[in-house]
Amino acid sequence: MSHSEWNWIADVGRRVPHHVRVKLGIGDDAAVLRSGGDSVVTTDMLMDRVDFIVGETPPELIGRKCLAVNLSDIAAMAARPTAAVVSLALPAAHGRELAERLYGGLLPLADEFDCPLAGGDTNAWNGPLVVSVTVLGEPTHRGPVTRSGARPGDWVFVTGPLGGSLPSLRHCTFQPRVAEALSLHQLVELTAMLDISDGLASDLFHIAEASGVGIELRAGSIPVHSDVDASLAFERRLQHALCDGEDFELLFCVSERDGQRLLANPPPGVQLFHIGRCTAETGIWLCESDSRTPISRSGWEHRFA
Amino acid sequence: MSHSEWNWIADVGRRVPHHVRVKLGIGDDAAVLRSGGDSVVTTDMLMDRVDFIVGETPPELIGRKCLAVNLSDIAAMAARPTAAVVSLALPAAHGRELAERLYGGLLPLADEFDCPLAGGDTNAWNGPLVVSVTVLGEPTHRGPVTRSGARPGDWVFVTGPLGGSLPSLRHCTFQPRVAEALSLHQLVELTAMLDISDGLASDLFHIAEASGVGIELRAGSIPVHSDVDASLAFERRLQHALCDGEDFELLFCVSERDGQRLLANPPPGVQLFHIGRCTAETGIWLCESDSRTPISRSGWEHRFA
Repeated sequence: MSHSEWNWIADVGRRVPHHVRVKLGIGDDAAVLRSGGDSVVTTDMLMDRVDFIVGETPPELIGRKCLAVNLSDIAAMAARPTAAVVSLALPAAHGRELAERLYGGLLPLADEFDCPLAGGDTNAWNGPLVVSVTVLGEPTHRGPVTRSGARPGDWVFVTGPLGGSLPSLRHCTFQPRVAEALSLHQLVELTAMLDISDGLASDLFHIAEASGVGIELRAGSIPVHSDVDASLAFERRLQHALCDGEDFELLFCVSERDGQRLLANPPPGVQLFHIGRCTAETGIWLCESDSRTPISRSGWEHRFA
Repeated sequence: MSHSEWNWIADVGRRVPHHVRVKLGIGDDAAVLRSGGDSVVTTDMLMDRVDFIVGETPPELIGRKCLAVNLSDIAAMAARPTAAVVSLALPAAHGRELAERLYGGLLPLADEFDCPLAGGDTNAWNGPLVVSVTVLGEPTHRGPVTRSGARPGDWVFVTGPLGGSLPSLRHCTFQPRVAEALSLHQLVELTAMLDISDGLASDLFHIAEASGVGIELRAGSIPVHSDVDASLAFERRLQHALCDGEDFELLFCVSERDGQRLLANPPPGVQLFHIGRCTAETGIWLCESDSRTPISRSGWEHRFA
């Protein structure tokens, strides 16, 4: 293939605001990042027909999602994003248009979260679209929050209603909870946190296993998103909230005392739903009035596959 | 697809030495990196039938290459690698075996370069193999070296012979020049540097354009690799050295005084070839006895496409 035919790939790869390129040295073999201390790093690779559908999902939403899922991982550590790198494998046919539109959705989100693109690698091939994004972040002086610090007695919260994110495309349009995580982290000690990607049930297991605790959920307190068909029976709607996944709300634990403080004085702009508590007995349990039913790890994985 | 069928993906993604996982917090949404100052970051995405051929290239060499090209970019900044993240899109058929063998080549190189895997994202899909690696590094107290500091009069060097890396598989087995870059950077001021990936001719343009200089090459001084057929005419062999690419040797510039010092006292274990000098007049020129011929940007791009 001739050089002129490939030049647009370099063009698209350099489609980054000039001040960012200068600051971060794009065009060199690596970007230079100014940093004062510890950093966090996360990466996600998203593929056509696994995480989105080229031809059905608008490319701007695909690009936005590929950055947003990484920003959500940074939020889950109670860190703020500092820089991102983006790699693309673009289908050769219409690849340039696709890349332009992907960046059309990705760059505004990067601006909104003050997360400059520090570089990347733009390729074309005879295969489907693949996008890999790595985001760096810096924790606050209180340090990053992991999944492993929950203790028996801790209260369990989520930051928004759950379920139905796929048909509504909310899995592409969701707002990463970076500001919310930082506000919460400033007010209280978050003992464990993650962002709900696999599904509430599956992600509860992640915290429970990493922390060595069990979790009792109060069925009536789990917020079901309005994207879930309201005409369904309660159990079916609850099943969507537990298992659909890709909600990208924060799921976190705090001491009972801090939980009461949060409910009394929630940080501005942060939705809080108190959905359960940690127990010394392991397992995840769904509690309704008198019943207590174990639930299984059945979160969402690859819906389009 | 059932959970049990997908579990191996998580298994492979966690195939990281235990001490590294603990140190870096794998299993959380992001890894925590201890760092004392500035960092550099680089990323490369490699695809089947573009950068390697699944079924022809041994998977261990594919895995090794995917990390090595990033380590080479870190070397080109005169930095040392600190951590890597690896994302895989594995073909569903035989994906597990492929992933095991990829890591079988990647992990020993990561160990050799003291570059722990800080995380990643392992996926399977109905598509060809895609590997995306991001490597973080830290520059020395002298700071990172870019492509843009070469000045007229500077001498131009490469750290090894060039050409023929594809048929010999040296594009997979090459040694990233991290130690060499650090040794050179300690001895002299490197005014510009990169690693030769596109090909010497094309990469000379990268330095020349970023620095605003021209470069005169001495045709007889360009080291042609023994992988290039020795029975070819000189011009054909030179063409391989100029244009094949994927040599991953360092191409760098230093002042004439520093160039003389390097030739008089080369750092131990570092091969040095003095191939030309920078000029105020822009363009890349090939000089042979009395002739001076402009050469074009015709480096290698995607040989398998």
